Amino acid sequence: MSFRTYKLKEIADYLDGEVIGDKEIEIRYIFPLDQANKNHLSFFYNKNFLNNLKNTKASAVILSKEFSGECHTNCVVVKNAHLAYAKATKLFKKEMSKTGIHPSASIEDKSLIDSSACIGPNSVIESNVRIGENVIIHGGAFLAEGTVVGENSIIYSNASLYEETLVGENCIIHANSSLGSDGLGFAINDSKWEKIEHLGNVRLENDIEIGAGCTIDRASSGETLLKSGVKLDNQVHIAHNCEIGENSIIGASTAIAGSTVIGARCKIGGGCGIVDNISIGDDVMITPMSFVTKSLKSKGIFSGGPILMKHENWLKNAASARRSTKK
Amino acid sequence: MSFRTYKLKEIADYLDGEVIGDKEIEIRYIFPLDQANKNHLSFFYNKNFLNNLKNTKASAVILSKEFSGECHTNCVVVKNAHLAYAKATKLFKKEMSKTGIHPSASIEDKSLIDSSACIGPNSVIESNVRIGENVIIHGGAFLAEGTVVGENSIIYSNASLYEETLVGENCIIHANSSLGSDGLGFAINDSKWEKIEHLGNVRLENDIEIGAGCTIDRASSGETLLKSGVKLDNQVHIAHNCEIGENSIIGASTAIAGSTVIGARCKIGGGCGIVDNISIGDDVMITPMSFVTKSLKSKGIFSGGPILMKHENWLKNAASARRSTKK
Amino acid sequence: MSFRTYKLKEIADYLDGEVIGDKEIEIRYIFPLDQANKNHLSFFYNKNFLNNLKNTKASAVILSKEFSGECHTNCVVVKNAHLAYAKATKLFKKEMSKTGIHPSASIEDKSLIDSSACIGPNSVIESNVRIGENVIIHGGAFLAEGTVVGENSIIYSNASLYEETLVGENCIIHANSSLGSDGLGFAINDSKWEKIEHLGNVRLENDIEIGAGCTIDRASSGETLLKSGVKLDNQVHIAHNCEIGENSIIGASTAIAGSTVIGARCKIGGGCGIVDNISIGDDVMITPMSFVTKSLKSKGIFSGGPILMKHENWLKNAASARRSTKK
Repeated sequence: MSFRTYKLKEIADYLDGEVIGDKEIEIRYIFPLDQANKNHLSFFYNKNFLNNLKNTKASAVILSKEFSGECHTNCVVVKNAHLAYAKATKLFKKEMSKTGIHPSASIEDKSLIDSSACIGPNSVIESNVRIGENVIIHGGAFLAEGTVVGENSIIYSNASLYEETLVGENCIIHANSSLGSDGLGFAINDSKWEKIEHLGNVRLENDIEIGAGCTIDRASSGETLLKSGVKLDNQVHIAHNCEIGENSIIGASTAIAGSTVIGARCKIGGGCGIVDNISIGDDVMITPMSFVTKSLKSKGIFSGGPILMKHENWLKNAASARRSTKK
Repeated sequence: MSFRTYKLKEIADYLDGEVIGDKEIEIRYIFPLDQANKNHLSFFYNKNFLNNLKNTKASAVILSKEFSGECHTNCVVVKNAHLAYAKATKLFKKEMSKTGIHPSASIEDKSLIDSSACIGPNSVIESNVRIGENVIIHGGAFLAEGTVVGENSIIYSNASLYEETLVGENCIIHANSSLGSDGLGFAINDSKWEKIEHLGNVRLENDIEIGAGCTIDRASSGETLLKSGVKLDNQVHIAHNCEIGENSIIGASTAIAGSTVIGARCKIGGGCGIVDNISIGDDVMITPMSFVTKSLKSKGIFSGGPILMKHENWLKNAASARRSTKK
Repeated sequence: MSFRTYKLKEIADYLDGEVIGDKEIEIRYIFPLDQANKNHLSFFYNKNFLNNLKNTKASAVILSKEFSGECHTNCVVVKNAHLAYAKATKLFKKEMSKTGIHPSASIEDKSLIDSSACIGPNSVIESNVRIGENVIIHGGAFLAEGTVVGENSIIYSNASLYEETLVGENCIIHANSSLGSDGLGFAINDSKWEKIEHLGNVRLENDIEIGAGCTIDRASSGETLLKSGVKLDNQVHIAHNCEIGENSIIGASTAIAGSTVIGARCKIGGGCGIVDNISIGDDVMITPMSFVTKSLKSKGIFSGGPILMKHENWLKNAASARRSTKK
């Protein structure tokens, strides 16, 4: 791998920060404090890692003013070190060398694909699929009839977009995710299940990132909607007719059941289960492994993860919980 | 999208129901009460939504006799409104336009594929794969050697069927699901793991639906078996040698460990974990996020999901649970 | 299916065991005690199945000396019956008939692929991908730029390996798994999320098995590392910058958050959640459905799964837990 090299002052200018130390030093990559070495940039924004700051071998560290005294090497002082770190990573991102439509891609109608888009090998683009400027569809991805992908979006390998899935601008959908599968909708018919056909679709607004191995079901009718700025970690499940509010973020392996509405700027930890047909207000935080059974209207932090203990204590606890409820 | 239009009396006849109101009104689509408008059909079967019924703008509503008095618009009175709704959705389902074998599909032996089957672009059909009448294999799906797919079944994009996987009639397997992977079977050999080869397979009887992103392991020997009518939501995991009884339904992100046997007509919520080598009787219901560690023989409803509370209360609760078990 | 047939003495020799009974009997397959019949070999290593041993119809059973008296049929007496069973399965494994590069595979540079490797239909091998001796890449798999797959490794269908993913020797990656997706890394920027570009990669040492539908995120910088002998069940999630120690094994649907380090020889059950930035020592066992929020240094068994009870008791328990924490 070869990357561009920057002088520290160039980086500081880009981050709107100020160098304390050697402005001319060359920076070749970015690493955490404990892994960084000569010509590496690092970052500090979490006091738990203060010891790592003191011992780092990095040539420079991004941090906020209050910690510049703790830094024995060059530093770039910024207002918000976490945000500046995020911006700095963009300097070291490898450029994609791919362009154009790979001859092995199966494309029904090329006239709907912007000429700047990149379509990878052995991908499938069915009929009436519109693909915007600078979109990248990686190899093996599948876009069914009527799909739309807005400009600058990226669809990774082996992702599956069912019929009529709408993806906005600047979205990223990671590998092996499925958007638009039928929801779990059945009516009982004499102890057998009669399928409810799912006639709706999935719509993603802009600036959304969907992790790998996620599943988002199409609506029974209408749409399953992710609003702008939503971020899903890997293996998240969003059921039919859900709505996820702007800039909400959801941790890995969380599952949200049908028709539930999540507000804006929520932070939902990994491994949670949220039942169907409830609503969660704006700015709610739910810690990992929680089970949400009722609507939550107020802002606040809610928790429900099970408590870890030594195995023998858990056995006692289980026996006592079962006993006390039998009284 | 364009759909067929129906007169309300046509729909009532199809549903074996009776119109109260304007039999001639045109119906173009079906929507929930709160989203429906003019020329839309809606449905009511859950009293929690009585307010939506009173305020709906739908041109007609499917409901049972006891609620016809609450309906201010046209209605179709039926015996079982949920079931009638499921049947009504089939009227508005878009027809697939695809037919035939796409030239980019890789097919080892076309003679084993029924001429009515549809095989999508860039899919893979290995040797000795038998595909029945009216089967649809979507783009990017993979069917390994010796797979069988019975008539009217649908395999969605990027699903993976390992060697000898047997799929019955009228089954649906959603995108990115894997059937037939090896189970987690290892024997300790001097603190290293010696692999147990998985020699069995996966068999699905008829009328089964597997959600997106599911994983079903092949048996170590013999078969992992899903009996007719089983429905799995997305991201369900079924381990090697499990057996799931007829018409049982399992919610998203539930994992069932090896050799466990689930009875018929069970309803298992999402996010559950069920340990290996146990058996669960017929008609057992388990609510979401439960952990099942022992066989359950009796009918009944079992629960074990963790309890949500404000974060500060959870911290107190955790401290107290740990303290009390240490005594 | 046709398999090789062995005489019982041949099997005993291979397993370093001793036959009690008919050394010449023909063995055609291996089955659990309750499914085995004439000419089948079976195995016994778990006392819970003693009744099955007494009633088996198998022609022979692998077991340890202390149980030979309980066996009414021929037996192969070995030191470690579980390990001997694992080894015996290898005798009955079907040979792969595939070889060579399928013409429908998209391969950027064949010169980097060992001539003994097998590349399946409609798979994608991008530029600078090195593939070692006897590697098998199944149909529909995707290997991005700069990927390396060491000798004897197998990549199953529709698996996705992102840029620079490094896979060692004798590894197995099951279907629809994703290695190298970006971690969930964002910094807040005025209530919107600024993406942290993930510049690192995923590296797997040797003898690793990754189940179907797993997701392993690339490091933000540096590497997400699985050490030799690690075994993951299906649908496991490993976040960016994690390190999993040698020969640790992780059950299905467990999720491990960013930068957490797991020691060697750990056994982590299915359905667990483990928070970010903690470390778990060597030889720690965590039972299924647990939530790990703090580092665990000592050896030992830890548990935290929620307790199953009748639904009406769970409701009482929930009310009481909420009440007691409000005091």
